Amino acid sequence: MTGVRPAPPTRRFAYTSTGSDIYAESFATIRAEADLRSVPADAERVAVRMIHGCGQIDLARDLVIHPRLVSVARAALTAGAPVLVDTRMVEVGVTAGRLPAGNDVRCFVADERVPGLARAWGTTRSAAAVSLWEPHLAGAVVAIGNAPTALFHLLNMLEDEDCPRPAAIIGCPVGFVGAAESKTALMASPPVPALTVVGRLGGSAITVAAVNALASRSE
Amino acid sequence: MTGVRPAPPTRRFAYTSTGSDIYAESFATIRAEADLRSVPADAERVAVRMIHGCGQIDLARDLVIHPRLVSVARAALTAGAPVLVDTRMVEVGVTAGRLPAGNDVRCFVADERVPGLARAWGTTRSAAAVSLWEPHLAGAVVAIGNAPTALFHLLNMLEDEDCPRPAAIIGCPVGFVGAAESKTALMASPPVPALTVVGRLGGSAITVAAVNALASRSE
Repeated sequence: MTGVRPAPPTRRFAYTSTGSDIYAESFATIRAEADLRSVPADAERVAVRMIHGCGQIDLARDLVIHPRLVSVARAALTAGAPVLVDTRMVEVGVTAGRLPAGNDVRCFVADERVPGLARAWGTTRSAAAVSLWEPHLAGAVVAIGNAPTALFHLLNMLEDEDCPRPAAIIGCPVGFVGAAESKTALMASPPVPALTVVGRLGGSAITVAAVNALASRSE
Repeated sequence: MTGVRPAPPTRRFAYTSTGSDIYAESFATIRAEADLRSVPADAERVAVRMIHGCGQIDLARDLVIHPRLVSVARAALTAGAPVLVDTRMVEVGVTAGRLPAGNDVRCFVADERVPGLARAWGTTRSAAAVSLWEPHLAGAVVAIGNAPTALFHLLNMLEDEDCPRPAAIIGCPVGFVGAAESKTALMASPPVPALTVVGRLGGSAITVAAVNALASRSE
């Protein structure tokens, strides 16, 4: 519009440019193409948003969602539970406006204690940071989107009966070393209701999508 | 180790837990499995790191890398060029320690002018924010990891001959509406050397991996 500075460039390409139209068209495409019959009914929007986050229809095939995951994660968030995450990318990806109770999203990987703990314990910073979750872990929603060692570390902690229990675990580390194995360990005996993508796929975008879908019912 | 608080959990699972071992094993797996013959020789590490970021060997098939992309992007970064990005996730994902000249990584999506421009122009905030890159665009490295509208907006801007030229474009928006089309437009007639993943795949992790690989030759 005249008078708005800077001026917009002349549009030479035809494309959908309204955010709400893009979302609606994206979600309709996913629902037309994806086979979501293996996903619990109340997790349909979670699955759609995760597929949206990675651009891959066949992610549906690799999704494993505990039947109580959606209900317990939503209840926890509504009650104000924090979201504990393994990376800054997941932290900034969660849309604050979708969280139902102004929930804290906390990442401890930059905590000053982390490098020393990682060195002393012979593990990654991502894993060491998970030990710093402990005072906040009771009833929290956990979202691991990068490091298999962080998920393994959490599973190790939860083997101790006196470790506080999170409400739900979104466990989607990615990659070639330990990712598939850590997610198999999670789903073989989930300590609390959990959600994962089996195999090598995972990552911060998928994990953020799951948290954002659980945070609000609106699409 | 005794005396380190908090105490580490007992390890019940066998897994590689040293960061350097994980990287080495990951990159070796990728090199053993991926067919990288279509990638320019000097882009091999970029491709490996992008595959590492998404856990998908067959990403190699969809990678399109301009033969001069790596050399111009490295030269720009060495000379101190800023990295202009479309999302906060990409912004925080770039590893500061890998950047060769303390380069700025800048995201304008939270700029106070953006909502008004997006409304006035009938486009997304991500796209409107790209117009705010203009004073910083000459010689910059651009990294778009989410919004097809941001890439289209940039291509529209670069159709104007008096728009400053970035040194290189990493264009990897993701999704079902406009992602494939925007990347086809980019590679059909790249205004400057560019890198993309054709089709629906893309995203912040892949984009961050490309920037981190271009920023430093060390793996």
